Amino acid sequence: MNTEDIRTIVRETLEQFFDSAIPVGISNRHIHLCQADYDELFPRVEITKKGDLKQPGEFASNQLVTISGPKGSIPKVRLLGPLRKFSQVEVSLTDARTLGVKPPVVLSGHLEQAVPITIKSEFGQITRDICIVAKRHIHMSPLDAVRFGVSDGESVSVEINTDARRTVFDDVVIRAIPGYVLEMHIDTDEANAANVQGNTVARLLK
Amino acid sequence: MNTEDIRTIVRETLEQFFDSAIPVGISNRHIHLCQADYDELFPRVEITKKGDLKQPGEFASNQLVTISGPKGSIPKVRLLGPLRKFSQVEVSLTDARTLGVKPPVVLSGHLEQAVPITIKSEFGQITRDICIVAKRHIHMSPLDAVRFGVSDGESVSVEINTDARRTVFDDVVIRAIPGYVLEMHIDTDEANAANVQGNTVARLLK
Repeated sequence: MNTEDIRTIVRETLEQFFDSAIPVGISNRHIHLCQADYDELFPRVEITKKGDLKQPGEFASNQLVTISGPKGSIPKVRLLGPLRKFSQVEVSLTDARTLGVKPPVVLSGHLEQAVPITIKSEFGQITRDICIVAKRHIHMSPLDAVRFGVSDGESVSVEINTDARRTVFDDVVIRAIPGYVLEMHIDTDEANAANVQGNTVARLLK
Repeated sequence: MNTEDIRTIVRETLEQFFDSAIPVGISNRHIHLCQADYDELFPRVEITKKGDLKQPGEFASNQLVTISGPKGSIPKVRLLGPLRKFSQVEVSLTDARTLGVKPPVVLSGHLEQAVPITIKSEFGQITRDICIVAKRHIHMSPLDAVRFGVSDGESVSVEINTDARRTVFDDVVIRAIPGYVLEMHIDTDEANAANVQGNTVARLLK
């Protein structure tokens, strides 16, 4: 390897290190299940992977359910894997209106104010107080947190610069945990409000 | 009327004049029709008023239609009155995905890139290139424009300060026309992305 090759590698690594673009991931409605709830909904069925998600180890499964509230139902809602300690249903506020539920806007796992929802599979049905709207957040590694000058749990502002609907989202929570890959998670309402396309990136304003 | 009464009136009038709060109106999916299209969909049926809208003369009618695209349909879409020169179907980007259409995000009346949509009533059916996603905007009087320091057609930034989802919307177009009442119009995706409630107000950042 000659000097010029090494220069190129150093330049590319530095560019990556100082790149301020944050990939945007759009979360469609989905559910997480604990083992006990999974066994009620899918008895003697193995959870199978449809495709990997960006966060290491997480995946979209082939298992689909129908979720129902007092006013309506939404079919073909995907179970994400692997199974978790606690079940959770994440919907948009548009979905919430269809279902007739009033879930809180909170971070994943904060189920204190979560509202009742019914989950049906082809094998069974459960009703649990586990429906939330996910609060927008950015997954990142602790090294990403250092280079952005932010810390785990902090609320930041993020600019999404798109055609016709440039938007600044405040109340974006930093989730800086070892192993996380840099990615801003917003739901379909937020993505549509900012006219987010496949290649749209976010930028931290602080 | 004594001096103190007059002082109170002047104070209240000034407060109103300098109040920077802008009421937020959420536009659900809806349609406008020209006379010819109305006659095809509702032959020999009088358009009837369900309730007044905030802009003078505009109203929600009792006439409902189903709108359809290549992938799906949405029932119970309301016709707004009075009839207009041009028909127009306004949906959210969430609706657009349900319908399977890719409408442009443009101001009302800008139908150059509008996409085909089918409208069905109990009496008939039409298909027209009139489906758009409305670009966010603020209706105001020319006097409002003077006090906010903006002009018709200008793009501004607007802060919506809500619980858990504070948001700054850029690309908000000022529509300052005599007779308009001060009101920011956003669609359901935008309202949900900012967690807008019934009493939420917007503030101009410029």
